[in-house]
Amino acid sequence: MALNRRGTSTCVFPNMPVIVSAASVVGPREGKGPLGPLFDLVCGDTLCGEVSWEKAETKMLRQATDLAVAKAGLQDAEIDFFLAGDLLNQIISSSFTARDKDIPFLGLYGACSTIGEATAIGSFLIHGGFASNVLVASSSHHDTAERQYRYPTEFGYQRVPSSQWTVTAAAALVLSSQGEGPKVEAVTVGRVLDFGITDANDMGSAMAPAFADTVWRHLSDLGRTPDDYDAIFSGDLGRVGSKAALHLLKQRGIDLSRVHEDTGLMIYNMEPEICSGASGCGCVASVFAAKIYPELKSGQMKRVLLVPTGALHSPTTCQQDESIPSIAHAISLVYPGWEEKGS
Amino acid sequence: MALNRRGTSTCVFPNMPVIVSAASVVGPREGKGPLGPLFDLVCGDTLCGEVSWEKAETKMLRQATDLAVAKAGLQDAEIDFFLAGDLLNQIISSSFTARDKDIPFLGLYGACSTIGEATAIGSFLIHGGFASNVLVASSSHHDTAERQYRYPTEFGYQRVPSSQWTVTAAAALVLSSQGEGPKVEAVTVGRVLDFGITDANDMGSAMAPAFADTVWRHLSDLGRTPDDYDAIFSGDLGRVGSKAALHLLKQRGIDLSRVHEDTGLMIYNMEPEICSGASGCGCVASVFAAKIYPELKSGQMKRVLLVPTGALHSPTTCQQDESIPSIAHAISLVYPGWEEKGS
Repeated sequence: MALNRRGTSTCVFPNMPVIVSAASVVGPREGKGPLGPLFDLVCGDTLCGEVSWEKAETKMLRQATDLAVAKAGLQDAEIDFFLAGDLLNQIISSSFTARDKDIPFLGLYGACSTIGEATAIGSFLIHGGFASNVLVASSSHHDTAERQYRYPTEFGYQRVPSSQWTVTAAAALVLSSQGEGPKVEAVTVGRVLDFGITDANDMGSAMAPAFADTVWRHLSDLGRTPDDYDAIFSGDLGRVGSKAALHLLKQRGIDLSRVHEDTGLMIYNMEPEICSGASGCGCVASVFAAKIYPELKSGQMKRVLLVPTGALHSPTTCQQDESIPSIAHAISLVYPGWEEKGS
Repeated sequence: MALNRRGTSTCVFPNMPVIVSAASVVGPREGKGPLGPLFDLVCGDTLCGEVSWEKAETKMLRQATDLAVAKAGLQDAEIDFFLAGDLLNQIISSSFTARDKDIPFLGLYGACSTIGEATAIGSFLIHGGFASNVLVASSSHHDTAERQYRYPTEFGYQRVPSSQWTVTAAAALVLSSQGEGPKVEAVTVGRVLDFGITDANDMGSAMAPAFADTVWRHLSDLGRTPDDYDAIFSGDLGRVGSKAALHLLKQRGIDLSRVHEDTGLMIYNMEPEICSGASGCGCVASVFAAKIYPELKSGQMKRVLLVPTGALHSPTTCQQDESIPSIAHAISLVYPGWEEKGS
């Protein structure tokens, strides 16, 4: 068994957990984007028939989890653990979704990195023999995030070019100890880095160092190069953060330009108000579920590194003149035929 | 290996993770309480030399983690993972503490149940062979919580008898794959329950069903009775919630009265303004570190069940007329000589 030796924090799974299903539910704007036809469900409006955006986000997360469990051919009673997190204070979308499920629950907070954190911990549970099936999920909603983190949504403030647009989306995955699907080969849990960025409208730059550090540690720990991956996805650095991240890695002698993609640049038609790109827990999660997962499942891509990134600040810390600490977790995923092919 | 069989969600560790150290840092009011002399550090005032209560909470959490690592005879470089959470939006106390540590970080949110969730996940990591040492921690601060969840602290609102007083405290534990100390024997991860309580001033009643459910499942899963424990600690139901919880368990034929204690009733001299008792992530965590841990370590208690409980609401959900979902995780702990004694 490949252990987490001191000096490395990459966990390698000898019996790889299988992602047996993935599901996504998005808002109308996301439905009109280039990935629109790939999402399982597109809401007609941002309220999804509810009376508040917060209740709408919870509904979308519940729908995504229900869909993922159904697609796996399972029922809630067969799920051993439910792991989720979101952007809202006290992760209410996740907790209120868990309320409707009779499944042991672990609530997580890693901002937009949450789906990575959940996949990592879910994989630990399966690896440890404590679970056959683990449901992991994450969500964000443009309007709930906007009014919690920034301004009342009615107030049309001027966005700056480095701003990112919070995605309205929820996604869920079922990890299993056996079955058919892409597999979790290894996980690198991130450290919290802070390069002193204080501009909450430039989270891409704030998260770039964490992304670069985690990718660098992942490749070093496993003795790999970017060429070992068909693609390395950040989620989400946007245009500004992606440029900074690739520059930081280049300084360490790693050229990511051939394989790097940012999920924040994949979900929208890049209208001017999207500025630097998309973000939010639901962005990397739904792009993975709708676009990356099927391509891995079919073998169109053989091995990818998914690196969800999170900015760990709050409105209070910004008001108190703190800079923005960030984190990124790397999840190495291989297509179903990997074991037979050998690595 | 004892697995998490479907129908049970209790994870039993064949090689029990060892809690090799525990540390606590508290505010002045907690220092004047009955456990005052047992805490490692008592701050002279609630600002701890910082310019805001939020920065003070982060400082206390950092001190608690530094102390726990030092007491374990370790350095940060020997810690494989840091797991933490707190009550503040975006768990800023934990994230900002992690920023100062060069340790892979997993952020958690389980309200006051967080130290239980962290201990559970830390144990999974050690069980899986991915960590030799895991640092787990949690904190709360009366004034940061008060102004975030309730009213500006300057506003002297009238508290009701079922109110609980948020503790100013941080605590940290080091879990190790080997070493001397109390051991984590088993963990029952809680489900989210909601019995329709909408009164944010009665969180004890809101959390009582989750406590009762988790204790009942833990005992059923392992075929045990309350007599198998020297004590079963809830953390924190207060007077009102404890009464409700014991009543709910009695309805299922389980009499907890002989062994039950609530950490929310242990930390303060019960002045009138404390009302139903103490609460906050730091309460159960610091009472465990200062009082329960040493008694387990010395063998004064042989086996205890620690059941941290969390109310998973937010000010937004209260304003939107939602009831309060809750969770509780059960951690079964045995004294260092347990293995030799046999069970």
